[in-house]
Parts: sequence; structure tokens; C-alpha cells
Amino acid sequence: MPNIKLVLEYNGSRYSGFQKQLNLPTIQELLEEKLREITGERVKVISAGRTDAGVHALGQVVNFKTKSLIPPERFAFALNSILPEDVVIKESKEVGEDFHARYSSKSKVYKYLILNRPFPSSFYRHYARTIFSSLNLKAMRQAASYLIGNFDFTSFQNAGSSSKNPYCKISQLKISKRGELIEIKVEANRFLYGMVRIIAGTLIEVGLKKRRAEEVKEILEKRNRKEAGPTAPPQGLYLVEVKY
Amino acid sequence: MPNIKLVLEYNGSRYSGFQKQLNLPTIQELLEEKLREITGERVKVISAGRTDAGVHALGQVVNFKTKSLIPPERFAFALNSILPEDVVIKESKEVGEDFHARYSSKSKVYKYLILNRPFPSSFYRHYARTIFSSLNLKAMRQAASYLIGNFDFTSFQNAGSSSKNPYCKISQLKISKRGELIEIKVEANRFLYGMVRIIAGTLIEVGLKKRRAEEVKEILEKRNRKEAGPTAPPQGLYLVEVKY
Repeated sequence: MPNIKLVLEYNGSRYSGFQKQLNLPTIQELLEEKLREITGERVKVISAGRTDAGVHALGQVVNFKTKSLIPPERFAFALNSILPEDVVIKESKEVGEDFHARYSSKSKVYKYLILNRPFPSSFYRHYARTIFSSLNLKAMRQAASYLIGNFDFTSFQNAGSSSKNPYCKISQLKISKRGELIEIKVEANRFLYGMVRIIAGTLIEVGLKKRRAEEVKEILEKRNRKEAGPTAPPQGLYLVEVKY
Repeated sequence: MPNIKLVLEYNGSRYSGFQKQLNLPTIQELLEEKLREITGERVKVISAGRTDAGVHALGQVVNFKTKSLIPPERFAFALNSILPEDVVIKESKEVGEDFHARYSSKSKVYKYLILNRPFPSSFYRHYARTIFSSLNLKAMRQAASYLIGNFDFTSFQNAGSSSKNPYCKISQLKISKRGELIEIKVEANRFLYGMVRIIAGTLIEVGLKKRRAEEVKEILEKRNRKEAGPTAPPQGLYLVEVKY
């Protein structure tokens, strides 16, 4: 059966995350429902990574198998014509039968967006975390540097994860600023549950001078979730890209 | 009576424009209602420029007179605590009694945002005009260059304007690109009704090669609205700044 890969973008504001849940609107259920409309088949969609309620995606990847004779490249157009406006297919193509959106991925890139200014925003409430006090980027960058590498990230994992392996290799953790927007971009071979949002929450505390940058090294070593900062809210988080 | 100046940002999506209209939600009515809550007075708000339904503002300016003893700088905070999330006061301060948000302004800056990519967006539908075919920026920049200066802009004015003077001096008209976003930024001493959106609609036609860049010079000379391109949709337009 042909194996189809989709790259998709979604505004997560209205959804209870990617993964199907009874009686809640999810991206997975929406996609499977629309694929059923198009193909007439019950299609099961596999994603590169689950996103939580309110989290966005610029480049989520899924794959599914189908007997449909629709040309693989046409799925993007066919789906976009019936999907609601907050979910868009950027690309569709056929991939090898062994391709698995999650297991085949080499790394994933997330970004966490912070709006740093002394008053709220009429545009970014659902698309960034607003911080009123000025953030110290230098301290945040120093703190971030301790997290680059292959470490046990237990201190940056929330309960509810099924993973027993706490090791992740962060290959990139960059903090950039454009006007009032600060972006934390992080790439790793794998992520633990809540990891990017806990990293963001911890770096924000460093930026606010509630913690010293060096503490991040100690947090990592203690392997205890209670040592790290709070989980930053979902609306600032974007799954940017999945690499294969 | 103290004269208070406010700088405000709003997401125009939910509003029928700035100016009060019977039974329609407008920014002016919202502001006057909230100022009445705070001051107990019937306050009349004067704006630097009316924005149409769906048009956004990053730096709209208004002024109003009040007998209230609230410190001028506190109006921003007091209003932000009761305004809906799509309207934000960025600054409030006392100005001289002759200050008039519209008549005192020296120039205004607008931007028109275009998302240029071959599929729709799950984030920008209410914040940019999406153009699927690739736009030729070089041609658009050449076309824009003919509009910089002091000209009769009758060809770029929609019916419904009360102004008899068709002359405007455009001091800046820049087209920039960042990723998939193209921004047309225009500054002038004054604008005719619909002017920025007609300029954007015309430049988009040039970018799509439906018109030659040189035609823009002829359109200007003909002083006839029918010669210019269509009025680009409101969701791409932002009132960026008012200069005094």
C-alpha cells in the first residue's frame, strides 16, 4: 500500500492537541476524518510528535497508508480544500513503505516565542508568552549553553511521559531577538514530555534574574523536575520542523 | 480641561472599523464606553485616522479631554485592565490643549502585509493578503518609485471620501521581504480614502506581471480611479505610526 507523507502547519489554539481524545477536537481526528472523506477508507495517521493543547506547528509531519488512487502530490490540495482555515497541508508525497513519521525522524526543531514588552498584545496572546519585565538575553544565552549536548534531562520532564530513556541530545539551542519578540529555538534528536516548555520556563526565570545562569547546570545534574522552572504556557510553542 | 493622548494597538478583525456606527462594534465606541466607566464622564475621542473594518493598528493615536483626576500616565493601565484582549493601550500622557490627533499630525505610516507562498496559511488569514503566485519584487519596487513625491492621487481614491484636496506627499514607499512575508510600507503627510489598499492592489498586479511597472506613472496622470488596480482586502493593512 502506498505510504503518504504530509507536512502540515496548524494554529493549535482551538485544538486539544494532536492526539485523538474522546469528545475533544484534535488534529489527528480532524485529519483522519478528512482523509476518510477523500479516500473512503478508515485511515490511521502517525505523527512525528504529539503536540499539547494550544501548541502550534509550522512543520508537523505525519504519514498514513492508503489504497487510494489519488496521486500522492494531490492530497495537499484535496485536503486544503476541505480542512478548516487553521490547518494547512504544505506538502504531500509518497515515501518508502518503511517510512514512519516518528521512528524515522533524525531530529526535531521547536521554537518558543516570547513577547517582551511592558504591556499586553492585541495580536500575540495566542501566539507567544508575554513577559512585561525586560529579559536579560546574555544570561539566558549563558544558561542555554549548559543544555547543549547529550544529557539526562529528567529535571526537564513532566509526569505523564511513557519514555524510560531520559537522555536527549540537544544539538542547537539559540536565543534570538527581533524587535519585541524573543525566540528560543531548540533542536534535539528526541524530546521528553514538556521538555521545551520547561526549558523555556527556566530560561525565562534566568532572564528575569530570579535564578543565576549557572544554576541550570546544577538543575540538570540533580535529575529532579522540582529543580527546574515552571512549564511555560503552550501558546508560545511551535513544532517548526522534523528532519529525516 | 486636561487633554490626554493615547497610543493604541488593535486587532481589527472583530470590529467594523474605528469610527462609531449604529449597532456595529467599533473601536471608537469601545474606547468611549471604557473611558466613561473610568471617568464617569461622556468622553469624545478624536482619532488620527479612521481605519476600515478588519484593518489593524500598531500605533493609532487618539486624544480626548477630561476633568478626571486620574494621572494621565495611569489611563493606559486602567484601560488595559478592562479592555477586551484585541485592543491595547501602549501609552497615555497629557498633551497641550491644542493637540488634535488628526489635525496636529505631520505624517502617518501604514504597512500592507502580503504572504507570498503557494498554499494558504493557518496563521495569517486575518493578518495578511495571501498571494499564491510568486511576486516580482523588482517590478513592484520600480512601480512604487513612481508614487514617491507630491501628486494628485485621484486614481488611488475610492468613493466615499469627504476630502476635496487630492494631493498627498508620499515621502517613503518601501517594499521589503522576510521569508514568505512581503511588506509594503508607506509614509505620507495625508492619505485619501482607500489609498494604501489601492496602491497595494496595484503593486500586486505589477508583481504578478498583469501590468508593467511603468503603467503606474500613467495611472497617476490619468486621475481616474478606474485606471488603478483593485482595493486590496483590509486584513493586510496596519496603521503603524502617527508622527507629530
